[in-house]
Amino acid sequence: MTDLSRFSINQMTVKQLTLPELVSACMELGVPGVGLWREPVQEYGVEAAAKLVRDAGLTVTTLCRGGFFTAIDPGERAAALADNRAAIDEAVTLGTDTLVLVSGGLPAGSKDLHGARERIADALAVLGPYAAEQGVRLAIEPLHPMFASDRCVVSTLAQALDIAERFPAEQVGVTVDTYHIWWDDQAPAQIARAGAAGRIHTFQLADWTTPLPEGVLNGRGQIGDGAIDMREWRGYVEAAGYTGPIEVELFNDGLWARDGKEVLAETAERFVRYA
Amino acid sequence: MTDLSRFSINQMTVKQLTLPELVSACMELGVPGVGLWREPVQEYGVEAAAKLVRDAGLTVTTLCRGGFFTAIDPGERAAALADNRAAIDEAVTLGTDTLVLVSGGLPAGSKDLHGARERIADALAVLGPYAAEQGVRLAIEPLHPMFASDRCVVSTLAQALDIAERFPAEQVGVTVDTYHIWWDDQAPAQIARAGAAGRIHTFQLADWTTPLPEGVLNGRGQIGDGAIDMREWRGYVEAAGYTGPIEVELFNDGLWARDGKEVLAETAERFVRYA
Repeated sequence: MTDLSRFSINQMTVKQLTLPELVSACMELGVPGVGLWREPVQEYGVEAAAKLVRDAGLTVTTLCRGGFFTAIDPGERAAALADNRAAIDEAVTLGTDTLVLVSGGLPAGSKDLHGARERIADALAVLGPYAAEQGVRLAIEPLHPMFASDRCVVSTLAQALDIAERFPAEQVGVTVDTYHIWWDDQAPAQIARAGAAGRIHTFQLADWTTPLPEGVLNGRGQIGDGAIDMREWRGYVEAAGYTGPIEVELFNDGLWARDGKEVLAETAERFVRYA
Repeated sequence: MTDLSRFSINQMTVKQLTLPELVSACMELGVPGVGLWREPVQEYGVEAAAKLVRDAGLTVTTLCRGGFFTAIDPGERAAALADNRAAIDEAVTLGTDTLVLVSGGLPAGSKDLHGARERIADALAVLGPYAAEQGVRLAIEPLHPMFASDRCVVSTLAQALDIAERFPAEQVGVTVDTYHIWWDDQAPAQIARAGAAGRIHTFQLADWTTPLPEGVLNGRGQIGDGAIDMREWRGYVEAAGYTGPIEVELFNDGLWARDGKEVLAETAERFVRYA
């Protein structure tokens, strides 16, 4: 029987809750971890947010998100590096060791996926050492191939690892998220590859439900509602040596329209039942 | 400079045209090939359709589509086999040597992608010999991973070839469609693998445009409007030895709302400019 000891709720799943409401709901429901997002944390104040979660005894499992490294323009590239250094600093303040990276899509008018992927590696060569000095690991998240043009040119775990392996594991690893990789028959072997190198920096869950909504971003399904066998994927990451937190991260208009605490309780219950 | 000698218009691109209108527009615009769909052909009459395109001197480059092999229920499986035998017979009548296969999604409630892929192979073991006896090649089309649950559990060229290679190339090969594979850095090598074995049975183009529409099916972009370098992909299939027709197949509500002949002329012009 799965319990909640490894469960972490990603803040975006219940974005209708303020940070104090989220922390209070976690304490009441026995949820031990939260994955935080930069924007709501900045709005609340990074130091204040850090104190709030620390006083509640919550573990901050990840900070979402850095990345967006694919610009060609030098000014935009410098701005992205500065923003990611700030994200690393925020991760330190919040007491989490993992910054999730969404790497960025194709620049306007470009059709060069390979070049965009190389620019991600160029940025990591600068940011990886800075992050490791602060005790923060960068976790490249391959996004589902349907996001390849507009959000993330890294579409598979294999591609993410091809980039990550240019750097030490304590600098750069990967995010394993069921929603993005469940269709890929190569993913189990790539999870083993990532685990053997100590590069599974976080494990996230969402289910695959259809029809996808317009724009496809907010279609991440509640655990148990879709096509993904969560236990199977948990088995792969655990066989690869991963023993860390398991975050549930849902972007879903239907869930956001409901009472946030009720959604958190439902998500915890689904985690116990399916993950 | 590309000319229209290898251009084929897939009937779905201009589905607002009746079959006689499509044939007439092709003759007027100098389009030498058409990829036909079963439903409108059946509606017109298969024999009558065959005579219409033959009298016009048009090449039928493919028939779309067979497939949907992933059911578990024995009755549904038998019905799918019978329907695919009928599709092979229709291909013969229409004078095309290629039947495109969309393999089917997960049965309701199932989370077993591997099992579904095996049931595709089981069906091909029956249909492959029948097709080859009729001079028809089956062309497994890997669909974009965003269709994995509800339409096609074969998501990459590698997966398609893993299945196809269990059979002789004159029975089973693959459909290479830019829209479904453009994000995949392994696809160029898989095209080479397919070409070396004589398994590139058709080559189709559509561009990748965002935002994707609700349900994502009808978001195939006009050539030149999106993120895909058509010349690059044409280069891969030609380097792999493919010298056959190049079909443009677009499902796009915006194009369907316009005058069909105008869309065909635009598509031919885009083919010359970008493909």
